[in-house]
Amino acid sequence: MTEPSLKRIARRENLPFSIFQKKVRSGRIIVVKNKRHRIEPLAIGEGLKTRINANIGTSPDLSSLPYELRKLKAAIEAGADTVMDLSTGGDIGKIRRAIVKASPVPVGTVPIYEAAIAARNTNKSFMHCTPDEIFTIIEEHLADGVDFITVHCGITRESIRGIKNQPRLCGVVSRGGSMIIEWMEANTRENPLYEYYDRLLALAKKYEAALSLGDGLRPGSVIDATDRYQIRELMVIGELVKRARRAGVAAMVEGPGHVPIDQIETNVRLEKAVCDGAPFYVLGPLVTDIGAGHDHIVGAIGGALAAYYGADFLCYVTPSEHLGLPNVDEVRAGVIASRIAAHAADIGKGVPGARDIDRELSYARFALDWKKVMKLLLDPRQAKKIYSRRRSRGGLTCTMCGEFCAMKKTREVLGR
Amino acid sequence: MTEPSLKRIARRENLPFSIFQKKVRSGRIIVVKNKRHRIEPLAIGEGLKTRINANIGTSPDLSSLPYELRKLKAAIEAGADTVMDLSTGGDIGKIRRAIVKASPVPVGTVPIYEAAIAARNTNKSFMHCTPDEIFTIIEEHLADGVDFITVHCGITRESIRGIKNQPRLCGVVSRGGSMIIEWMEANTRENPLYEYYDRLLALAKKYEAALSLGDGLRPGSVIDATDRYQIRELMVIGELVKRARRAGVAAMVEGPGHVPIDQIETNVRLEKAVCDGAPFYVLGPLVTDIGAGHDHIVGAIGGALAAYYGADFLCYVTPSEHLGLPNVDEVRAGVIASRIAAHAADIGKGVPGARDIDRELSYARFALDWKKVMKLLLDPRQAKKIYSRRRSRGGLTCTMCGEFCAMKKTREVLGR
Repeated sequence: MTEPSLKRIARRENLPFSIFQKKVRSGRIIVVKNKRHRIEPLAIGEGLKTRINANIGTSPDLSSLPYELRKLKAAIEAGADTVMDLSTGGDIGKIRRAIVKASPVPVGTVPIYEAAIAARNTNKSFMHCTPDEIFTIIEEHLADGVDFITVHCGITRESIRGIKNQPRLCGVVSRGGSMIIEWMEANTRENPLYEYYDRLLALAKKYEAALSLGDGLRPGSVIDATDRYQIRELMVIGELVKRARRAGVAAMVEGPGHVPIDQIETNVRLEKAVCDGAPFYVLGPLVTDIGAGHDHIVGAIGGALAAYYGADFLCYVTPSEHLGLPNVDEVRAGVIASRIAAHAADIGKGVPGARDIDRELSYARFALDWKKVMKLLLDPRQAKKIYSRRRSRGGLTCTMCGEFCAMKKTREVLGR
Repeated sequence: MTEPSLKRIARRENLPFSIFQKKVRSGRIIVVKNKRHRIEPLAIGEGLKTRINANIGTSPDLSSLPYELRKLKAAIEAGADTVMDLSTGGDIGKIRRAIVKASPVPVGTVPIYEAAIAARNTNKSFMHCTPDEIFTIIEEHLADGVDFITVHCGITRESIRGIKNQPRLCGVVSRGGSMIIEWMEANTRENPLYEYYDRLLALAKKYEAALSLGDGLRPGSVIDATDRYQIRELMVIGELVKRARRAGVAAMVEGPGHVPIDQIETNVRLEKAVCDGAPFYVLGPLVTDIGAGHDHIVGAIGGALAAYYGADFLCYVTPSEHLGLPNVDEVRAGVIASRIAAHAADIGKGVPGARDIDRELSYARFALDWKKVMKLLLDPRQAKKIYSRRRSRGGLTCTMCGEFCAMKKTREVLGR
C-alpha cells in the first residue's frame, strides 16, 4: 500500500499519520484490501472503531445467487464493514466472483470449503486432496479479489492432542476446522496450511490479501470455553502471526465462539498478549448456549464485552444461528445487533468520537426534536416504524408517557 | 413471613435454610409478597438467580384494560418474574386491581403517578397535593395487594442541589422523579416521601410489602451517567435502606438507566457498598443512547454486565423504549432479551445450576437431538419457527451447514 493511500486512511480514522503508520508497521492495525478488488481499504485494529462482519453465502440446502446478492445488499445497507461469503452450495466460484464484484466493502472467504466441495463434486474424498490442490483453490480465491481469507493454520497434530481420549462436550464446531482434522486423521499428516505456511504467506503477499487465522478449535459450548485445545491452537497462531509480519503479510486472529461472560476478558487479553497485539476478530462471543432464535442478542452481549476489552472486529451472529441459514431480515437483524455492540464498546473504551453521537442524540432527545433524533439513531427505519404507529396527543411527546413526559416536565420546571 | 414458608422458599432456591435466613435477616435477600396477594413469594438478592421485571400499563394516549391483561399474559408466558403496572391512563385503580388479581407473580406500582393523575382529574394541580393525599393513595395501592412500590424517597432538596445552574444533558428522565421535583419546587418544601419516610415504612410493614427505592435522578444519557446528582441520591437511599431494615421492611434499590459499559461495574459495586448489599434493581442499563428501536438489545448488554457484577433484578427494556408504549410482541421481546441477559450473568457469576442447562442443551445439540434441543432452549417458540422454515436434506443437520455440519463430522472422525 502506498504512503498517500495510508495517509488517506489515517485521516479518515482521525489518527495522526505517524501513529497510524507505526501501528500498521507493527501489525497492530492491518489494512484490508486485495490489490485486485476495487474498494476503499479498511483498517482494523488497535484504537480504531470496532468493525463488524456479516457472513452470507449458500449452503448445500439453500443456494441462490440472486438471494445472496440481496443478503449482501441488506448487510451493506445495515452497516456491515465487511462480508464473508461462506458459500458451500451451488456454483460457489460464480457466487464468490459476483459477491466480490458487487461488494463495496472487503470480502472474506474460507477457501478450504471449496476444496471439500470440489472433491465431492468429482466423487473424490476431501481426504485425498493434495496440498497442491488446496493451494490452487486458495490462489483462485485471491486472484478473484478476495480481501481476506480464513485459514485454519493453527490446528496441528499437537493442538488436537488428546481430544479423542478427553473429548469436549461439543467437539469441533468450526466447519473448516473439522475438515482439516478429518484430513489430518485420514492422512496421518500435519495440517498442510501449517506445514506449508510459507507458501500461504507468499500467495497472500502476491495479492496483498490479509490472512484471518481461523480458530478451528473454538469451543461450541460455554462449557468447553477456554480449554486447552483452544489455547494450544492460539499458541500456534501466535507463532504464525510473527511469521506473517516478518513476511510483510497482514494477519488477524479469529476468536471464539461460545464464552461465558466471566471468561471474555481473559480471552481477549490472552490473544493480545500471545499474538502481540494482532487484531482480534471474534465470532459473537455467545455468552450462553440456550439462546438459539435470539443469538444475535446473545452475541451482542458477548461482542460488546469482547470489543470493550480490546477485540477489534466482531463477526455478527444472526437470529437463525444454530437453526438454519439466515434470510435477508435476519442478516439485517444480525448487523444491527453487532453495530450496537460495537458502538457500546467504542463508547466504553473511549474510541475518539464515539460518545459524540450519543451526546448529540441525547441533546436532540431532550429537546424533543424527533426529526433530529431519528436522523441520529443507529437504525432510523425501525425507530420510525414504532414511533409512527401511534401519535401522542401530547404533540411533542411519545405514547409511552404522553403528557407525563419527564423530559418535558424537567424543561418546564428546571429550565433550558 | 412464617418460618415454614421461608423454608419452602430456601428449598426452591437451592440454598441451605440457615444461609437463606441470615441473608433475609440482613436484608441482602428480600422476599416480595403483599400479605393480601395470593401468590408464591419471590426472593430477590445476593446469590440467587437474577430476576427480571416487565413493565406494563397504560398511558394517557393508549389505555385499554383488556390489552394490558394481554401484555400481562405475554410477560408471564415469556418468563417474567414480576410485572410492574405503570399505568397513567384510564381508570388506573381498576386496571391495577385487575392486574393484581390476574397476576401469578408479584406486582409493583408507582403510586405517585396516581396522585398526579387524581389531581389532574379533579382539575387540581399535583403541586397542591398534600402529603396526606399522597399517603392515602399509597395505602390504596398496598391495600389492593401490590407487592412492591417504587417510591422516589431519595430525591431531596440536597440531592438536586445545583441542578439548575449545572444542568445535565438530559435533565430528569424518571416520571416519578420529575413529579417530585415539580412538587418540591412549587412548594419549596422537602420531598414528602423523604420527610415522612417513617409513615411509608409503617404502611409497608402493615401490608408486608417491599419498598423499591426509586432512582428519580437516574441519568437519561450515557453522558450524564454516574454524575453527582445520581450519586447524591444513592447516598440518601443508602441511609433509607438502613432505616427500612431497622423497621423490618424489605427494601431494594433502583439503579440506572443509561450507563456506558465502562461504568457499570462501578455503579453496581457502589450500590452494594453504600446500601450495604441491598438487592439492586436496574433498568437496563442502556449502554448507548442511539439504539431506540432495539433498546431491548442495548439493555440486554448492560443488564448482563450489571447482573454479572452483582445486580439482582433487571427491569426489562422493550424495542419500543423511547418511542412509544410497547405492544404485546414487544413485551415478549423485552422479557426474552432480559432473560438472556440474566441467564448469561448467572452463568458468569456462578449461580448454582445456571451452567447445567447449557451443558444439557449442548450435549443434546452435539447429539443432533433436535427435539431435546428445542425443549431446553430459552425460547423454543422462536427457534422452532426458524428451524422448521426449511428442512435440511441432510436429515439431522440444519440448513446452515447441511452435510458440512462440523458436529456431525467431528462425531464421525473423533468418535462419540
